[in-house]
Amino acid sequence: MKRRVAILGATGIVGQRFISLLHNHPWFEIELLVSSDKSSGKIYGETVKWVIEHHLPSSIAELTLHPLNPELIIKEDIDVVFTALPAEVAMQIEAELAKHGIVVVSNSSNMRMEPDIPLIVPEINAEHIDIINYQQKKRAWEGFIVKIPNCTTIILSLSLKPLIDEFGVERVVASSMQAVSGAGLTGVPSVVILDNLIPYIEGEEEKVESESLKILGELSPGGIQLNRDLKVTASCHRVPVLDGHTIAVFAELKEKPTIHDIIRALEEFRSNKIKNLGLPTAPAKPIVVRRELDRPQPRLDRLEGKGMSVVVGRLREDKALGGVKYVVLGHNTVRGAAGTGVLIAELLVAKNII
Amino acid sequence: MKRRVAILGATGIVGQRFISLLHNHPWFEIELLVSSDKSSGKIYGETVKWVIEHHLPSSIAELTLHPLNPELIIKEDIDVVFTALPAEVAMQIEAELAKHGIVVVSNSSNMRMEPDIPLIVPEINAEHIDIINYQQKKRAWEGFIVKIPNCTTIILSLSLKPLIDEFGVERVVASSMQAVSGAGLTGVPSVVILDNLIPYIEGEEEKVESESLKILGELSPGGIQLNRDLKVTASCHRVPVLDGHTIAVFAELKEKPTIHDIIRALEEFRSNKIKNLGLPTAPAKPIVVRRELDRPQPRLDRLEGKGMSVVVGRLREDKALGGVKYVVLGHNTVRGAAGTGVLIAELLVAKNII
Amino acid sequence: MKRRVAILGATGIVGQRFISLLHNHPWFEIELLVSSDKSSGKIYGETVKWVIEHHLPSSIAELTLHPLNPELIIKEDIDVVFTALPAEVAMQIEAELAKHGIVVVSNSSNMRMEPDIPLIVPEINAEHIDIINYQQKKRAWEGFIVKIPNCTTIILSLSLKPLIDEFGVERVVASSMQAVSGAGLTGVPSVVILDNLIPYIEGEEEKVESESLKILGELSPGGIQLNRDLKVTASCHRVPVLDGHTIAVFAELKEKPTIHDIIRALEEFRSNKIKNLGLPTAPAKPIVVRRELDRPQPRLDRLEGKGMSVVVGRLREDKALGGVKYVVLGHNTVRGAAGTGVLIAELLVAKNII
Amino acid sequence: MKRRVAILGATGIVGQRFISLLHNHPWFEIELLVSSDKSSGKIYGETVKWVIEHHLPSSIAELTLHPLNPELIIKEDIDVVFTALPAEVAMQIEAELAKHGIVVVSNSSNMRMEPDIPLIVPEINAEHIDIINYQQKKRAWEGFIVKIPNCTTIILSLSLKPLIDEFGVERVVASSMQAVSGAGLTGVPSVVILDNLIPYIEGEEEKVESESLKILGELSPGGIQLNRDLKVTASCHRVPVLDGHTIAVFAELKEKPTIHDIIRALEEFRSNKIKNLGLPTAPAKPIVVRRELDRPQPRLDRLEGKGMSVVVGRLREDKALGGVKYVVLGHNTVRGAAGTGVLIAELLVAKNII
Repeated sequence: MKRRVAILGATGIVGQRFISLLHNHPWFEIELLVSSDKSSGKIYGETVKWVIEHHLPSSIAELTLHPLNPELIIKEDIDVVFTALPAEVAMQIEAELAKHGIVVVSNSSNMRMEPDIPLIVPEINAEHIDIINYQQKKRAWEGFIVKIPNCTTIILSLSLKPLIDEFGVERVVASSMQAVSGAGLTGVPSVVILDNLIPYIEGEEEKVESESLKILGELSPGGIQLNRDLKVTASCHRVPVLDGHTIAVFAELKEKPTIHDIIRALEEFRSNKIKNLGLPTAPAKPIVVRRELDRPQPRLDRLEGKGMSVVVGRLREDKALGGVKYVVLGHNTVRGAAGTGVLIAELLVAKNII
Repeated sequence: MKRRVAILGATGIVGQRFISLLHNHPWFEIELLVSSDKSSGKIYGETVKWVIEHHLPSSIAELTLHPLNPELIIKEDIDVVFTALPAEVAMQIEAELAKHGIVVVSNSSNMRMEPDIPLIVPEINAEHIDIINYQQKKRAWEGFIVKIPNCTTIILSLSLKPLIDEFGVERVVASSMQAVSGAGLTGVPSVVILDNLIPYIEGEEEKVESESLKILGELSPGGIQLNRDLKVTASCHRVPVLDGHTIAVFAELKEKPTIHDIIRALEEFRSNKIKNLGLPTAPAKPIVVRRELDRPQPRLDRLEGKGMSVVVGRLREDKALGGVKYVVLGHNTVRGAAGTGVLIAELLVAKNII
Repeated sequence: MKRRVAILGATGIVGQRFISLLHNHPWFEIELLVSSDKSSGKIYGETVKWVIEHHLPSSIAELTLHPLNPELIIKEDIDVVFTALPAEVAMQIEAELAKHGIVVVSNSSNMRMEPDIPLIVPEINAEHIDIINYQQKKRAWEGFIVKIPNCTTIILSLSLKPLIDEFGVERVVASSMQAVSGAGLTGVPSVVILDNLIPYIEGEEEKVESESLKILGELSPGGIQLNRDLKVTASCHRVPVLDGHTIAVFAELKEKPTIHDIIRALEEFRSNKIKNLGLPTAPAKPIVVRRELDRPQPRLDRLEGKGMSVVVGRLREDKALGGVKYVVLGHNTVRGAAGTGVLIAELLVAKNII
Repeated sequence: MKRRVAILGATGIVGQRFISLLHNHPWFEIELLVSSDKSSGKIYGETVKWVIEHHLPSSIAELTLHPLNPELIIKEDIDVVFTALPAEVAMQIEAELAKHGIVVVSNSSNMRMEPDIPLIVPEINAEHIDIINYQQKKRAWEGFIVKIPNCTTIILSLSLKPLIDEFGVERVVASSMQAVSGAGLTGVPSVVILDNLIPYIEGEEEKVESESLKILGELSPGGIQLNRDLKVTASCHRVPVLDGHTIAVFAELKEKPTIHDIIRALEEFRSNKIKNLGLPTAPAKPIVVRRELDRPQPRLDRLEGKGMSVVVGRLREDKALGGVKYVVLGHNTVRGAAGTGVLIAELLVAKNII
């Protein structure tokens, strides 16, 4: 029996990725497409500005868009709601849904730092999902909310996880070069970005610096504890690339491994947290290491592992910081958003939570 | 009396910038255009692939290209040679010219780190020019060589200079997003860079990490001493931007100034080293600070101060490193190459060295 | 005494060009900036997303934006209103202004094909301005409206004018490659246009096919008569270029001139209609011919004649159609919009109409 | 038994497409990779600058590049040679190979217009292959040469074929917007094409105007007769798009069909010439018609039919020419080069010629 799924914010780029990943999914069935704007009541295929590389499935194209109405979602007996709504819209509806027994897997940035709301990258912190019981009790909810972290943070944190586990990381400096799709369908006008870059993305650096500490933190009875051993500083920039966020990372390490040791740690990382669960969307290798001097490149590497692997390259010693520097790339709307959301939902199924 | 000038490597992008800056210059007259390739003997205007925003002056277009022949340059009574040759070509000819009394201002990367070869950004280290006497004596040259530093290094070092002077800088992490013009006319094919970025530029990081220590080092009788208080680590990336290198900088400071103090230090920086010399190409403000959240941007800011100012923005505290982070932008082929070369030559004239 | 000027739609790209062209204009003074959106009451410099290559003048940056209120414009004793409003907004206000004695020079597409509304490219049809008397009488207006044609149409028509005059033109096939700035600040999202082109621009082909016949038509007492000898067919496409519309033109000619004759006709075209009027914004050469095989190119040629010249290249015989084919380029927001608007206003001043 | 295949010019973009299409092909086996430059003797995977969207197969990556030596190819018992060499290199080797019994399917532009050399788009003129007998006899060759037409010409001709068959076409005006991959790995530098377009491609217009008449011509005993009823005029332009040539087509028709009739003719076109042959690379629909106003777009539509379909859109009446205008798009290195080459070789197999 497939779980019945609704997608909120279905016309946006992350909404399109949710559709692409959930269509013909072995465990989920798309039942409802919901849009927050004036397009409700219209036919999806006639309304959406479809921009992703796969064709829009024709059975989805024929669906009618529904308004953002919690009662409808509850009445339709939906098991999981995936949300890709602006934070200010999500804020008003997610709690309402959770209260009435709906499981919400949300890409919206509201509530991400609240201690009882798990912020999950399954390969890193699948066990944080256990905070759900506390969340439900504390808030008197029948359902619950799980948050997908910020895109850049997911990609960075995945690359840091084996380094933290094996060598210890003290400080991280991250400078990102982010794709325009991260700002949504109309976020970056072409008159702004052609022959240019924008050295600012609102709220992004704060998210990278705080959310990474939570993802890499510890589960405790009263909520997730931030990782207090780690310091992260970020500078985030928009570049004229369609898909794929690239991050230059400089990491101060506690131990002094060789580059060879570091490559091994990254390449062999498989995540003992989900490896025997058979999650359909989990990539064979969460981290792919490339040895060419000029990789990873967004256009060539963003679809690695169907967009679910992050690709690391240019591993070299950092003498100034005492550690390592490297470049990591990930697909911002797959690994960095919808793909991690689907992986979270698969984790919930595998754990018999939904 | 204007000094007689030759430009070596005149058909390349930096060669084009030299022409644009030296045409109608009050102190210099272009006498010879030299190209290293098979184009010698041809008319410049019919040979060059002119790509910069100013029109090619018609009097220059009519000049004949000369071969790379030191004897010709010596015979033509040239006062200053500006070179924009590949390092492996420059290596064979620059010493020969200097030996025979020619003053060489060179953008080529060979010899930059030799202690008796000054590596000059006039606003930072004009006094390093005094090492010329030692250079001439040691090498038994009648002329001498001055080097223009690497483009990214010039832009970074200018922004660091007031911070070092006023607050002390311990460590610098620099992540660059560099324009395609930095790789020359054919360096970055369009099939490589459209919808993409390349996280590697050969030799660039080593140049940034070493040359900055020399520029910010000290003159001593036996050669320039590297700055031993400073550590620099760099990661360099090519992005689809025509002109203008942007650098995300994270600096660990010795003192703990406010952001307001830092802005003041940058904005008030005028360089006491050249300020009374009346150099025609010196910008009124070597550093321009912008307060908007989303500046500097290469397309909007690269021509600030006719391409000779660097533009700093996004100044904010860096808690992880204990210092400041910011973004600095400069025009890579003007401030980062030909413009700094012309400014060096002007300094030599003002100091009565040529 | 300078004429007092208001700019309606001042925050858009054409509005920005109007400001850039009218600031420090010898005959006009910017008195009022008007915006149609919620930004009225705000400071212009803090509100506008300034994207053009010249700096925003600081005296303009400090102006307050006014709401779209005809009474205010009338009360402020404005001589000329330049409008760059969406057609549906312009429709409601332009007639009201004209009725109350205001001279409206409008870039909006409404009313362009009405026979009593002159549609002017001064070098082509300055005499059409005489229809104003008929317009005022017929509509009982104290002021009047003059329209700036569609951008692509202006550029195409300028290149056709000498061919029509000297050789006769029967049919024209025009295929355009248009810059993203033609769609305004947010018209073309980057997720749509990077590594792509859009083979459709709403309403554009109809405008090219109809407006060209009016511009190249004849003044008659009851209104402008369309040119009935000419047939124009167009296909219009958006490409990832910031500024500058390029048009491939195939023209069937009545006579059979040599290519040399055609080049002469284009190069010598000076427009006897405005040549002795000393209009400040008129370029020395309305048409510049380039002989290189690979010109005109938008990035290299769009600022020819300060953006007011069109550049023609690749003139060659067309055996299939019996005529000539060529490529013409013009700056879409200068020659194709605001620049032609300012030139029209200068014509009105020179003719003592305002 | 699979046919043994060599690819000449294997490191270029068309060479890469040949590899991608022939790897795991049911009828062919890649035996030899040949490169014309100094890279012979090197390992393919370490030498090639791989730029296409599929991963380089690892078994191919390990192959050694061979020099351009006809004797080697003959000795290796190769059945079919696919060439993607520059015309001046191909000229010297193709005849030599054909003379010694090799079948040459060539993408090089030399010899394309010779009457005894078939220039094939299988869906259009598969029967022209019969000229091979005459070619062999006339030239005393044991093997033979078949040419793949120019990329733009293939795409244009496919779209014209059903119109010619059903309604008659008198004149065609074609204005192309061509991808940078058409110029090869280094043909279009990024400093040239960013924020720009180039209105010239050497030799392209002549190829479109002449080759289309041969493809759409008739087989006769003494060679292929050009289509004398048709006149084609072209203007060709390079735009900043990675893959996919887009052509605006204006066609003067003999009959006056409705747009509905034209859409039907295009959509129903299946080519009776190859439809029962089961060619593996033949797309289900050679022509796909899209009804959206803004399609075809290169990024969204170039992989239609795995890159082998052309996509037509914007069909509308052309009143000026008396006919129809539309936009057609095809993948320039698949349908426009390597893909048509593989389809030709499949045709030769199906016809028992090889």
